[in-house]
Amino acid sequence: MQFHHYGYVSGDPRRQPAAGTGVDRPEQLPDEVDVLIVGTGPAGMIMAAQLAQFPGIRTRIIERRPGRLEIGHADGIQARSVETFQAFGFADRITAEAYRITEMAFWKPDPKRPEHIIRSARTPDDPEDISEFPHLIVNQARVLDYLAEAALNGPARIRPDFGVAFNGLTIDGDGDGDYPVSVSLRMNADTDAERERTVRARYVVGCDGARSAVRSAIGCTLTGDQANHAWGVMDVLAKTDFPDIRTKCAIQSHAGGSILLIPREGGHLFRMYVDLGEVPADGNSAVSKTSIEQIIDKANDILSPYTLDVKNVAWHSVYEVGHRLTDRFDDVEDPASGRLPRVFITGDACHTHSAKAGQGMNVSMQDGFNLAWKLGHVLCGVAPERLLSTYSAERQTVAKNLIDFDKQWSAMMAKRPEEFEDPGELEAFYARTIEFPAGFMTEYTPSLITHDAEHQALATGFPIGKRFKSAMVSRVCDGNPLQLGHQAKADGRWRLYVFADAASPESDSKTRRLAEWLAHSPDSPLNAALPGSTWVDWFDVKVIYPSAHHEVDITAVPAVFKPAVGPFGLTNLENVFATSSDADIFAARDIGATGALVVVRPDQYVAQVLPLTATDTLARFFSALLKLEKCNS
Amino acid sequence: MQFHHYGYVSGDPRRQPAAGTGVDRPEQLPDEVDVLIVGTGPAGMIMAAQLAQFPGIRTRIIERRPGRLEIGHADGIQARSVETFQAFGFADRITAEAYRITEMAFWKPDPKRPEHIIRSARTPDDPEDISEFPHLIVNQARVLDYLAEAALNGPARIRPDFGVAFNGLTIDGDGDGDYPVSVSLRMNADTDAERERTVRARYVVGCDGARSAVRSAIGCTLTGDQANHAWGVMDVLAKTDFPDIRTKCAIQSHAGGSILLIPREGGHLFRMYVDLGEVPADGNSAVSKTSIEQIIDKANDILSPYTLDVKNVAWHSVYEVGHRLTDRFDDVEDPASGRLPRVFITGDACHTHSAKAGQGMNVSMQDGFNLAWKLGHVLCGVAPERLLSTYSAERQTVAKNLIDFDKQWSAMMAKRPEEFEDPGELEAFYARTIEFPAGFMTEYTPSLITHDAEHQALATGFPIGKRFKSAMVSRVCDGNPLQLGHQAKADGRWRLYVFADAASPESDSKTRRLAEWLAHSPDSPLNAALPGSTWVDWFDVKVIYPSAHHEVDITAVPAVFKPAVGPFGLTNLENVFATSSDADIFAARDIGATGALVVVRPDQYVAQVLPLTATDTLARFFSALLKLEKCNS
Repeated sequence: MQFHHYGYVSGDPRRQPAAGTGVDRPEQLPDEVDVLIVGTGPAGMIMAAQLAQFPGIRTRIIERRPGRLEIGHADGIQARSVETFQAFGFADRITAEAYRITEMAFWKPDPKRPEHIIRSARTPDDPEDISEFPHLIVNQARVLDYLAEAALNGPARIRPDFGVAFNGLTIDGDGDGDYPVSVSLRMNADTDAERERTVRARYVVGCDGARSAVRSAIGCTLTGDQANHAWGVMDVLAKTDFPDIRTKCAIQSHAGGSILLIPREGGHLFRMYVDLGEVPADGNSAVSKTSIEQIIDKANDILSPYTLDVKNVAWHSVYEVGHRLTDRFDDVEDPASGRLPRVFITGDACHTHSAKAGQGMNVSMQDGFNLAWKLGHVLCGVAPERLLSTYSAERQTVAKNLIDFDKQWSAMMAKRPEEFEDPGELEAFYARTIEFPAGFMTEYTPSLITHDAEHQALATGFPIGKRFKSAMVSRVCDGNPLQLGHQAKADGRWRLYVFADAASPESDSKTRRLAEWLAHSPDSPLNAALPGSTWVDWFDVKVIYPSAHHEVDITAVPAVFKPAVGPFGLTNLENVFATSSDADIFAARDIGATGALVVVRPDQYVAQVLPLTATDTLARFFSALLKLEKCNS
Repeated sequence: MQFHHYGYVSGDPRRQPAAGTGVDRPEQLPDEVDVLIVGTGPAGMIMAAQLAQFPGIRTRIIERRPGRLEIGHADGIQARSVETFQAFGFADRITAEAYRITEMAFWKPDPKRPEHIIRSARTPDDPEDISEFPHLIVNQARVLDYLAEAALNGPARIRPDFGVAFNGLTIDGDGDGDYPVSVSLRMNADTDAERERTVRARYVVGCDGARSAVRSAIGCTLTGDQANHAWGVMDVLAKTDFPDIRTKCAIQSHAGGSILLIPREGGHLFRMYVDLGEVPADGNSAVSKTSIEQIIDKANDILSPYTLDVKNVAWHSVYEVGHRLTDRFDDVEDPASGRLPRVFITGDACHTHSAKAGQGMNVSMQDGFNLAWKLGHVLCGVAPERLLSTYSAERQTVAKNLIDFDKQWSAMMAKRPEEFEDPGELEAFYARTIEFPAGFMTEYTPSLITHDAEHQALATGFPIGKRFKSAMVSRVCDGNPLQLGHQAKADGRWRLYVFADAASPESDSKTRRLAEWLAHSPDSPLNAALPGSTWVDWFDVKVIYPSAHHEVDITAVPAVFKPAVGPFGLTNLENVFATSSDADIFAARDIGATGALVVVRPDQYVAQVLPLTATDTLARFFSALLKLEKCNS
């Protein structure tokens, strides 16, 4: 965490100084905004947290409810989300209060006595150390609290406008003008003082859930399965003799169906998904009227010989969710038309599926993380508007993969024990596919912001299009052992990781010549006429030398890796790394003696891997991407 | 973190429900209080944080300043303090914003060119992995912020009474009556509305620093060295070519004296202690008038050939601190008189020494941590008043050891290079003594609350009288890998760690018989008629089995290790542990097949190690300690 460089900071350094629109931010929703986010769910709030880093932009986020969410329905936090939270500054805190899944148990009918269940297997949750981050369970309301804190601590000081409902929107002509989106709102929604109002926006983002009104307004529809499977879900406190009550379990009974058991934060609460069978697509089935008592009775049937004495019900519902998806995530019906998007939808507004793989909140947050920095760069005039078209292209594919995965997992969970060909099929599927629900199978294909894999062999441990996987390094200036990836905050910057070819910074090397080019070439992206005071506002350039930190003479490291910051022109020494004494990042990520340049997007995905000499390719990549217009700040 | 067991908690679980005096806590200082803490420095604030866990007690903490400390002078946080912060719930957060010391560099005159310094050695800061916690540097103001948050989040909802100064106190007779201490205060201190007021207290704690008025009021004086050594100290932002500016350094120059360099939080700020030489004891020397410009010039002389271009001075001062100590930390002049203490002093009020070993704030906090739970237990009627006499006895010895250590370190730092017999003497001293400044050499001797070492051989890895050193275990109910010691919160409870003799809880064993005795014997401390609803309010009983967690059948574990909690009588399954797959705590702490019972004090110090069969000894220990009187709650 860097602070004090503008002078002494006495209070919490996480509270960044207010800037731009964050200074004297109006309490009331203004008539014109740059970005209007509809809905304060996980996708909306992560967008607010990210856009709070762009104080040149007027971002507002509206919410129909009068205040904070008290109890949410999502609770699964995959490792990729915790990784994302780390960049927003609250991974440690949410981990401390969450339930951590380290293994999953499988229960089946006892072959000797089929009316009783017995434990048939246990599978570690992350057997291959896919991530250094844990798999957590914690209520969505707390995720939103932390994201709200990040939004409020950012320079733009964003806080939700509560009690404001979305009515509808219209887009002027082709959407080319200033503030082309007219949004009709109901202020003081659900109170006696309700009144209509129109706000004009440059961009609107619908984060308004499965019944999204923004989706309807842009003529998108969810399509997919008509058949639904119903599950009773309850968050309860109970006394029980079931031994695995604090372990995630898939429980299949002989007669009564199945249960997915998810322990929850706090040591006592747990969630159960109790199988209620298939229901007709018209929705008006008797299943939806299943009472909490019936769900508890069913759970007791399935758990036999164990019993469940429910003492307190925090929340319960009957889920009947099919697998449905929109074919586009923005308002551009025909991409070939050349029209650029003005309205976007995210999360449940685009994709609905079962809750049991614990994916919904996670994928929604990645939708928001993917879109927010793009809006930030376009509105600050750093990137061309066509960058925004990559959002629908990238995220619609992810949602499609999610739905395919969830269909398999849901079908598997709904199967009766005797329907499995192989008795170990369920746990084998779980173990085989673990990287997907952990959130690390997203792999963006080549586009304006993701290069092809021509030079992938230089660093096979950083697959292009997948998220940058951290590894341990040693910081040269202070010898601190650190996770390299964790030094990247969600600050909207592009990152250049220079894995050096020479162990010593003194020697003439490709690394030194690249550093010279970055600092001095007119073709270098760092020398583009970007808004802000220095290139440091838009780029984070780090170097990693293939030697121990004592062997790196920091005075000999090229200046571009030690940029001047703040009003005093202080030297930032914290971008220079060496290998850790415990682990060699070059070996771990398969980087050879010629080194490699790894370019990483603001949302943590690897954009390209290049030779240290490929300055032309680097210049071309960024010249297509950096569009030097006025910034609103 | 356990919550939800009283019903669903929607907000931050760190904010415990208000109880007792925390419900409708009066804004104004009442006329009668149980504990009056004078001063909101590190010792006072940790007492407030600890006493916030005792909502039956009216604790108030007064501070002359009108509000929060903006910039403090202490900054060294030893690993023992971070361990303590973990128990108060903020170790991760303060670590994230602090500077972490991982090594120390030593600079000396270049033998080839003595007017220039060169790096002569580097020493790891914790070469022997004394602690899993880091050694940090962060401003005292932030430590106080976190302790204030803990005090406010506790059930007693303690917040400082600002603008209140201490004038003096008198104790009625022998101090036997109710509220025997009359304290004279100045309300609205340093404002036009200043007025005098008297408050009566059961106990008063002076945490009012080196010029303590509480110390004077009880007739204590600091005695010790009359000779002072002066150091210029400055917290600055600067441009420099000195390569180790982000590493802790001891720098000895040929001509100009020495510097201790301490990098600070935030990546840019650093502190320098610049040697200004010996000064006469009368204090009115010219040295105290040394200007910041003179300190900077001196630093440049010492650093030659490197230069320091100071851009911003956050704080500077001239330190002239000798080594002084009071012979008692309470108001009992003659312990043989049988009189029991009513007034205590802590921290700098008792001991002053150089700042350069980074000890002051740390030892002060341990003073407060040692005293606060004792006041809590006595005032709740759980312990006899003579428990309070152990405070002065235990902490005066620690302070004496600190001063002896600091004298050696200060003398070493003030030596000229040519005065060392062995050129590696300074770094050898640093490496040899590292456990002391890390805070782990405190070893309390036998007393009412620390047993003798008769059975130490059963668990040599838990030295009696030293703090309980954590190790990894696996929690049986969910397979989570955890630090056993980190499960102990600063909640004022005694802890019994039962290291089981049998790998399986099913078998008849000493562990099972101990569990039966604890649960059912009238001699068991758990069956003492303690205030509160159950023994769980005063005791934390944990069991660790010497086997993998899959091998422990939690349904067979004795009930005392799975106590009922909260209004629903839910089962707490989180006290049952097994060995971690990576590390065997039995091997790491040298516990054999007969097992061991380790009793740990509320301030984390090991009180005794016993055989699992030593129920008589255990009963005797607690029968002397538990005094069953009315609780104020």
